Amino acid sequence: MKVDSVDLFYLRMPNVLDIGDGSQDALLVRVRSGNFEGWGEAEASPLTSIASWIAPMSHSACHPVIDSVLGERIDSVEDIERISLKVRTNSFYGIIQSNLTFSGVEIALWDLLGQVKEQPIYKLLGYKTSEKKLPYASVLFGDTPEETLNKAKAMRKVGFSAMKFGWGPFGRGSVEIDSAHVHAAREGLGKDGHLLIDAGTVFNEDLEAAAARLPMLKSANVMWFEEPFAAAAISAYGKLAKMDPGVKLAGGEGAHNPLDAQTLIDHGGVGFIQIDTGYIGGIGPAYRVAQYATARGVQFVNHTFTSQSALAASLHPYAGLKDSWITEYPMEPKQLCVDLTVDKIEMGADGMISAPDAPGLGVTINVDAIGKYVVDAEIKVEGKVLYSTPTL
Amino acid sequence: MKVDSVDLFYLRMPNVLDIGDGSQDALLVRVRSGNFEGWGEAEASPLTSIASWIAPMSHSACHPVIDSVLGERIDSVEDIERISLKVRTNSFYGIIQSNLTFSGVEIALWDLLGQVKEQPIYKLLGYKTSEKKLPYASVLFGDTPEETLNKAKAMRKVGFSAMKFGWGPFGRGSVEIDSAHVHAAREGLGKDGHLLIDAGTVFNEDLEAAAARLPMLKSANVMWFEEPFAAAAISAYGKLAKMDPGVKLAGGEGAHNPLDAQTLIDHGGVGFIQIDTGYIGGIGPAYRVAQYATARGVQFVNHTFTSQSALAASLHPYAGLKDSWITEYPMEPKQLCVDLTVDKIEMGADGMISAPDAPGLGVTINVDAIGKYVVDAEIKVEGKVLYSTPTL
Repeated sequence: MKVDSVDLFYLRMPNVLDIGDGSQDALLVRVRSGNFEGWGEAEASPLTSIASWIAPMSHSACHPVIDSVLGERIDSVEDIERISLKVRTNSFYGIIQSNLTFSGVEIALWDLLGQVKEQPIYKLLGYKTSEKKLPYASVLFGDTPEETLNKAKAMRKVGFSAMKFGWGPFGRGSVEIDSAHVHAAREGLGKDGHLLIDAGTVFNEDLEAAAARLPMLKSANVMWFEEPFAAAAISAYGKLAKMDPGVKLAGGEGAHNPLDAQTLIDHGGVGFIQIDTGYIGGIGPAYRVAQYATARGVQFVNHTFTSQSALAASLHPYAGLKDSWITEYPMEPKQLCVDLTVDKIEMGADGMISAPDAPGLGVTINVDAIGKYVVDAEIKVEGKVLYSTPTL
Repeated sequence: MKVDSVDLFYLRMPNVLDIGDGSQDALLVRVRSGNFEGWGEAEASPLTSIASWIAPMSHSACHPVIDSVLGERIDSVEDIERISLKVRTNSFYGIIQSNLTFSGVEIALWDLLGQVKEQPIYKLLGYKTSEKKLPYASVLFGDTPEETLNKAKAMRKVGFSAMKFGWGPFGRGSVEIDSAHVHAAREGLGKDGHLLIDAGTVFNEDLEAAAARLPMLKSANVMWFEEPFAAAAISAYGKLAKMDPGVKLAGGEGAHNPLDAQTLIDHGGVGFIQIDTGYIGGIGPAYRVAQYATARGVQFVNHTFTSQSALAASLHPYAGLKDSWITEYPMEPKQLCVDLTVDKIEMGADGMISAPDAPGLGVTINVDAIGKYVVDAEIKVEGKVLYSTPTL
């Protein structure tokens, strides 16, 4: 079989707001080969990514992604690895958006291969089982500690025993204010729950400011302290980790290739590595990081805040790993992401979820429902149309 | 003063070949404020970068670059830093091409500020002098050691006492073949010259293959061993550096923010950090790396293979540093890059070059000569034209 066609779709909500909610638009990829079809999503600026798909070549290391994908053989997992390597080799300089763009394409190739082989992706990866994961609820801090307390209580009531608070006022005022929020979150969650704190890179590279938060995080028994620094601030991570903070560091959502994640493990000292399959290059690179992390006693966690198909793509790479038992679950996605799939990865009676058992990703794109979100876009160079929105 | 307009131009040669020559196209940026004008270039896929400039916002951390630049105050160096931080804060997730795109904009802002203050950029950066640098000639290995020998002899004859050989057959066959090439280069250059070897990331992450080349590199008295691994393979760099190879490692052209370069210094153990001003975010980030490197005994070197204006932009950030005394000089750029500027940074009778003393970058874009290279491009979303090629 060959990759007969690859179509990129830019979907978005009627109104996109200037808020930290990545579910307001989507870059959806459809791959076809013979009578089979696969779908994937990238966590990336749709228009920029579409341009990287078709941009005219600049030189031998700056090819558009399409050059390495269309017409390629696709019969096995090795073919996907070969195509990935081709993209890296042909697009590594001057077109770094290609890493993100290809993530969606790569996921679609796995989904397609799963349809052909009638196997869920986790089995194609070599896992025998799809282990249960504990979903955590991810929410913003309230504007006041009281609001944070109430949010935590509400989440607990819905059934979440693990929750993550982040962003909002955290790190923007005094340590005392942060502490009040963190302890309010702990109070609302209860002593037995897993509490995660996400600084959202607020300290950039400021080691001292991040370190000042450690004692109160420890006293609230926080399980991880996420993204205190900018994604690339490896040395700051490493120094904070060496302070023996009594709370593990988490990070990695900014990794746009597996080596970035390995550097954060090797030199950043994180205890949890958080990977977005739609950002790091797809299923293969995410799986590689999961194996690398596990071998070093680091827990792998997905980073997912959009759709159920993105959630499925993020679960397969570590489906079979028992030691990596927690998972980010998109809590309040916009209607676009709700409508995107026919099915949903539901929590069981025990509150746990796992990677689906149906072929490929295991969730089905709801083609009939998403037409209204498709954005009409066109890119022309010297009068020639290089991209126009394909038909769903 | 305010940033009144920013215009992005996609320039290219009539025929772009699938070869390792980045001078075949260019992303040129023009910034205007009042009666002043500044120019900059990014080392980036032009069309992809243009898309990142105007792509509709996806969420609060995925703004197009234009949102952080147009209409901003531009009176001082601090304003450029403020705008840079704004871009990083507003565009750090899902639109990583923005790092490259903004490099060209940032350089244009410095050029403009230099016109306003009637100062060369290196003085705006705080340097008192523009130190002389030794330009090295950068060429590909020949297909045979004899060819490599002849290339080295020819370069020496033209006057280069420092030269870099790379790519071609290197690392693709046996150590013996590589050794024959490296020793042929040394023979052609002469005992007293500076010989640099560029592996062009050929070993990807293969520590053993790279290490096997060390003894012959040492025996040929090679000054640096450049990019043995993929840019992000920090741990592989670090392990190779710890082998006490007798030859210093060089790398960094893939750094698309200053933290990437710092990680390569801190954990990759390089002795030379090679920065492309048009890739790392512009003059400010390159200057920051130059200072960081110098404080740690690491030499800063530019990475430049295109135009004279790119060369000027790459010289200013380390103009005043005496210890960083070598510079990459674009040898055989395509006509587009020759025509791009009115003036040229010429070698003195002593074979040395230095950052220009004229205001801003110190080289002038040849607006009359480049019109024929401008590519007509258009990007439309929902019928609205977000980009069309501006008038030169």
